Amino acid sequence: MAKCAVSRRSRITPEREAELYEAVLDLLRDVGYDALTMDAVATRTRSSKATLYRQWGSKPQLVARALRHHKPVSIADIDTGTLRGDFHEMVARTDDQQIEKDSALLRGLAHAVHENPDLHQALRDLLIEPEITGLDALLQRAVARGELAADNPALKYVPHMLVGAFIARQLIEARPADRAFLSDFLDSVVLPALGV
Amino acid sequence: MAKCAVSRRSRITPEREAELYEAVLDLLRDVGYDALTMDAVATRTRSSKATLYRQWGSKPQLVARALRHHKPVSIADIDTGTLRGDFHEMVARTDDQQIEKDSALLRGLAHAVHENPDLHQALRDLLIEPEITGLDALLQRAVARGELAADNPALKYVPHMLVGAFIARQLIEARPADRAFLSDFLDSVVLPALGV
Repeated sequence: MAKCAVSRRSRITPEREAELYEAVLDLLRDVGYDALTMDAVATRTRSSKATLYRQWGSKPQLVARALRHHKPVSIADIDTGTLRGDFHEMVARTDDQQIEKDSALLRGLAHAVHENPDLHQALRDLLIEPEITGLDALLQRAVARGELAADNPALKYVPHMLVGAFIARQLIEARPADRAFLSDFLDSVVLPALGV
Repeated sequence: MAKCAVSRRSRITPEREAELYEAVLDLLRDVGYDALTMDAVATRTRSSKATLYRQWGSKPQLVARALRHHKPVSIADIDTGTLRGDFHEMVARTDDQQIEKDSALLRGLAHAVHENPDLHQALRDLLIEPEITGLDALLQRAVARGELAADNPALKYVPHMLVGAFIARQLIEARPADRAFLSDFLDSVVLPALGV
């Protein structure tokens, strides 16, 4: 296996880093977390395992970094003036292919995070907490506008509803989630549960 | 590996069948669907692979049968007189350990069903359709009593909400779902989304 040109963190180019992360996510979707080995990452990216460990420390950290890097939709800057508008802007900023790829990642990770506390911690720090913070800011603005009651019991479950929407359709309907499905789920379930 | 005494379908005892299914589900929770091999099932249950294939035909069929056999909560006969009562009776008929075991199965299957159409078909026929039919009967009685509008847009998403509740808590909170969580989710999300 050929050694790549990157030997120290400071030498890696943003393009090379992006390429590595994409390869990690492709492997994750194809084979799942357990079967994703540092050997497979090294082979697919033409890197040495030593380089991977030196750059990222461990497999959970590499996977979490790749997930964080990949995340294409930032919700932190969405502010349309209504909660319904904000939710639908979240959907409008993605596309069906991206939704299917994200669903595949969630499916591949749902089993793995339970078995790997290190992966779960890395995911929480890099991916889940920042997203929940962004979602929370969006919901708190709706509370401040008077669209939502601050003590609405469904507020704390918005992340659960969204994760469920991504994963459940494949399991129940044997079809991937897509924009039309997510929009209808937001209008039919999430907004009514919030009383909006 | 020792051959078991069962050589034809008619010779298998219900006890032996239950033991085999439990072993399959334990393997599924431990290693996931992809890593579950007929060899591993044969070893753990002290059966021959030939016996397993003769009795069940294929790995997806064996797994689907095991899941169907295991399902301890039948919702078909729940009828408390109110939708809220019916939902909470569903929760009351299980326990925290069972919920965690069912969540582990869903996590292990969420990735696999996408990659294995045969498994998904077997799951649909044996597990998903009968459960959705039971859930639908319960919801239709609520419509007949006037608790729910027949055209409520959240009606078709009740299975998605429930599957999401089972899977999302582990991913988001790093804690398994339990009875207290499911009860609160039903009261906070499912019933309000249905306008009840």
